[in-house]
Amino acid sequence: MNNKAIGVMDSGVGGLTVVKELIRQLPKEKIIYFGDSVRCPYGERSTEEVIHFTEEIFQFLSRKDIKVFIIACNTATAAAISKIREMTDIPVIGVIMPGSRRALQISNNNDIVVLSTRGTKNSHKYKSTIQKINDHANVLEIACPKFVPLIESGDYKNKKNRDKVIDETLSNLKRTSADTVILGCTHYPLISNYINEYFNNEKNIVDSGFETARDVSTLLEFKKLLSNRKSEVIHDIYVHGDYKQFEQILNEWMPNFKYTIQSVEL
Amino acid sequence: MNNKAIGVMDSGVGGLTVVKELIRQLPKEKIIYFGDSVRCPYGERSTEEVIHFTEEIFQFLSRKDIKVFIIACNTATAAAISKIREMTDIPVIGVIMPGSRRALQISNNNDIVVLSTRGTKNSHKYKSTIQKINDHANVLEIACPKFVPLIESGDYKNKKNRDKVIDETLSNLKRTSADTVILGCTHYPLISNYINEYFNNEKNIVDSGFETARDVSTLLEFKKLLSNRKSEVIHDIYVHGDYKQFEQILNEWMPNFKYTIQSVEL
Repeated sequence: MNNKAIGVMDSGVGGLTVVKELIRQLPKEKIIYFGDSVRCPYGERSTEEVIHFTEEIFQFLSRKDIKVFIIACNTATAAAISKIREMTDIPVIGVIMPGSRRALQISNNNDIVVLSTRGTKNSHKYKSTIQKINDHANVLEIACPKFVPLIESGDYKNKKNRDKVIDETLSNLKRTSADTVILGCTHYPLISNYINEYFNNEKNIVDSGFETARDVSTLLEFKKLLSNRKSEVIHDIYVHGDYKQFEQILNEWMPNFKYTIQSVEL
Repeated sequence: MNNKAIGVMDSGVGGLTVVKELIRQLPKEKIIYFGDSVRCPYGERSTEEVIHFTEEIFQFLSRKDIKVFIIACNTATAAAISKIREMTDIPVIGVIMPGSRRALQISNNNDIVVLSTRGTKNSHKYKSTIQKINDHANVLEIACPKFVPLIESGDYKNKKNRDKVIDETLSNLKRTSADTVILGCTHYPLISNYINEYFNNEKNIVDSGFETARDVSTLLEFKKLLSNRKSEVIHDIYVHGDYKQFEQILNEWMPNFKYTIQSVEL
């Protein structure tokens, strides 16, 4: 048993899709979240920059005495997870492996599409992770650079703008033989219903957040790190830069979430 | 990377539902399986007996130099997993935690039914495991002592006999508010379609095998124990007692499975 917090980082609000599942699947766990909104999106930045940002945030959250560090951002997982694992003895969990594992669990034809930022796509981490487990899996990686700005701005609630971006981005996939689509960016679950509709609800949609929370549960249990907290949990949110837009999306997305929030500089 | 085999045990053919998922989700892994057919079913035996059998089988498989030991039997997991973990440094994975975790992941109302043998039911291990993670989950445990004999005998293929057993066993659950049903015995996935139909396809059905394979994948990756085997894998099956009935079910259930099989005494 261990009642320390779970540290979670993302470039912005996307990692909240992981947090939402963590608190649902592991209601006794306390979350300390860092959203790097001022430097979002990470998807178009260089690998070196993303590694540097992730290290900074890891160091910030380490000072809060966390028992596990979750990189709830695919771009940062692809760029920096090996580096962070070298820096610490606590478990470091990214979002690429859980999503890959679920895709291999659920796909019937091992024909898988991955939607992600350009940074994640160029790393080919999904392809290599999936094929490390199954050489015969077919993995098509698609960059969707307009999705994160659409979501962080809140503009995804405007049907016309949303449809335009989704249609432009996914039009080449209309006839794909893949039966499974990985949302390879933690922002995308906020528009997963629309992506699902775009594919006529005919694909398995894999949500990294949903799957990462499950793997965190597996590891906490196996390492005897589950919390036995009895009291109500108040989670802590740190936002790099102004948190107004962040908090608005947080409240819409997780209306019953109990939290403190503050702006921080690094 | 580690190309040793995964050791899997069950009281009989039930653990093959775990193996089927292991080879699908982790095609590079080799399985060494032990089916204790001559002493099956475990569900009506005393805890002491089940512990003793599980220890014997663990010792048998240990001599084959395995990297992880899977107790693919709920009754044996409930009775013996703590004991086996004390005996070894390799990871020991049971089937109760993965199924519990999946139920908490997929249920919308945290109202969960567990179908199991009498031994598993009386241990209340599902209830305690689920509530360890979420105090507010409601867990109803139902013993289904006629299911394993129905399956091991092959009689589940006879519609009349099958319907009679399922109806007798589950009739009290017709109006349950639970939205999720855990198949808390690895034999039950062989009749999961019929159980699903009994509930008018309205419940989430959780298959321990499907979920255990996923958790094995998580742990092998996290502990850097995944295989990078390139050649075709031939799995090894050991059956305690005669293997004729065992092999017949194996061939029907997994027609493309490549294996050697032999009878053993303990």
